[in-house]
Amino acid sequence: MHTRFASFTRNGQAGYGIIAETGVIDLSARFGTDYPTLQSVVEAGALHRLEEASRGLQPDFPVSEITYEIPLLTPEKLICVGVNFPDRNEEYKDGQQAPSNPSLFIRFPRSFTGHDRPLIRPPESPQLDYEGEIVIVIGKGGRRIAEADALDHIAALTLCNEGTIRDWVRHAKFNVTQGKNFDRTGSIGPWLVPYRDESQLADIRLVTRVNGEVRQEDRTSRMIFSFRKIINYISTFTTLVPGDVIVTGTPTGAGARFDPPVWLKPGDVIEVEADGIGILRNTVADEGTA
Amino acid sequence: MHTRFASFTRNGQAGYGIIAETGVIDLSARFGTDYPTLQSVVEAGALHRLEEASRGLQPDFPVSEITYEIPLLTPEKLICVGVNFPDRNEEYKDGQQAPSNPSLFIRFPRSFTGHDRPLIRPPESPQLDYEGEIVIVIGKGGRRIAEADALDHIAALTLCNEGTIRDWVRHAKFNVTQGKNFDRTGSIGPWLVPYRDESQLADIRLVTRVNGEVRQEDRTSRMIFSFRKIINYISTFTTLVPGDVIVTGTPTGAGARFDPPVWLKPGDVIEVEADGIGILRNTVADEGTA
Repeated sequence: MHTRFASFTRNGQAGYGIIAETGVIDLSARFGTDYPTLQSVVEAGALHRLEEASRGLQPDFPVSEITYEIPLLTPEKLICVGVNFPDRNEEYKDGQQAPSNPSLFIRFPRSFTGHDRPLIRPPESPQLDYEGEIVIVIGKGGRRIAEADALDHIAALTLCNEGTIRDWVRHAKFNVTQGKNFDRTGSIGPWLVPYRDESQLADIRLVTRVNGEVRQEDRTSRMIFSFRKIINYISTFTTLVPGDVIVTGTPTGAGARFDPPVWLKPGDVIEVEADGIGILRNTVADEGTA
Repeated sequence: MHTRFASFTRNGQAGYGIIAETGVIDLSARFGTDYPTLQSVVEAGALHRLEEASRGLQPDFPVSEITYEIPLLTPEKLICVGVNFPDRNEEYKDGQQAPSNPSLFIRFPRSFTGHDRPLIRPPESPQLDYEGEIVIVIGKGGRRIAEADALDHIAALTLCNEGTIRDWVRHAKFNVTQGKNFDRTGSIGPWLVPYRDESQLADIRLVTRVNGEVRQEDRTSRMIFSFRKIINYISTFTTLVPGDVIVTGTPTGAGARFDPPVWLKPGDVIEVEADGIGILRNTVADEGTA
């Protein structure tokens, strides 16, 4: 099994560590002076170092004692790719052909919550929707990164439920910003899995379930814009730096595409799962009740 | 004259201070332990305290010794408002009425450079364009801030040349992200002016000149979405925090709207000026030559 690095809160204190089979190996207690956060571990390129250093260590406390936080709380950039699986472009029913470049938007970390915590449905809208996605974390920065080299710039993988307030995505003339940035409407996690080779990404299955029912299911080999292309394209205009987070797009089947649409409601359980990464699970709660 | 707080580099070292008539009062040398950056001064709500503490101090070095940086380098959020002056909505010639909510997009700080430095034209496109705008800096955080209280949440004002690579704004199906985020294509500054009362914003003149020729000119009293409305609307979906930066929209007259369009080219001098804030001046250079 891949090593799993998580950020968490325990007894009101922020920390990070390895989620082992039998509990949590507390890395912040051991390495917190050098690396106060998991973000700083990634930025220093120290994931593998800490993985080596933790071999043979016994868990310090059970997983039940932690509250998961999003793995990286202060990335310089958190960029999301829209419309990146076949059939999803057709879902828009606007008669346009598949785009020649990836559509990109930006979310703030505070629009996400951690694994095993509720997504928050705000009073402004009942249209809370899910989007299961794979996340790549940049380990080596660069500008105009060639597709051939692109995967070498990845430090780790994780999952995202790119939760969206659907009617607010088109609240204004351009851009999806507001519908994608309601506080804690999405989630990232549960953990970072260090990236080692292309087999971890090349053709893995990505599934989203709501209350156990499969709603989205596809394979990364079918992505319109490959992980290589995404890194190449984004780094054309902005310098990527270690710790940057890229959310790579969702398969067809979000609730908005049902007729009539099916929105998430309090009590629903949403699971985003990908081979080799894990399962990101969240419930839903109305704001003020969680 | 209002006090002017700037971030700068001097002899290769980052600092911040007050730009006085006769030179720079170095605040980082005096208060750097408590507040390592101007960002941390704003986040701590300490602008006024430092203003008081610096009364009577003599400048430490001439302005010619500093290189201006953007005033706030690490805001949690940097949000831009699109299409916010009359006639500008009509410029889009898409037959749509004025929008009922502000269009919002996000820029990364690295898409900006400081005052008196060149905007960078990348090799990917000749379509570098200017957009002069007023910037508000949040001093008091909040969620769902009422319009009546909104101005109390402002700590300071500054200016932005919201430089844009015009063809990359529509490079993909949705969102302007990439055309707004080429490294150092825009600028913010020269400095922060502490906010005291509404007269500083209510009806000020905003002008953009290119090589001395007025290209954009309007007054804030004509904004489609007022400063109050912008703060109210953004805080509906995201919690604003001290140090957040909001770029509030540009008047008609960007280079894209000329027939044929007029793009910025190396050697051009662009000035964004607003009453009571100052003049933000930049040149243009091709990437790799500056």
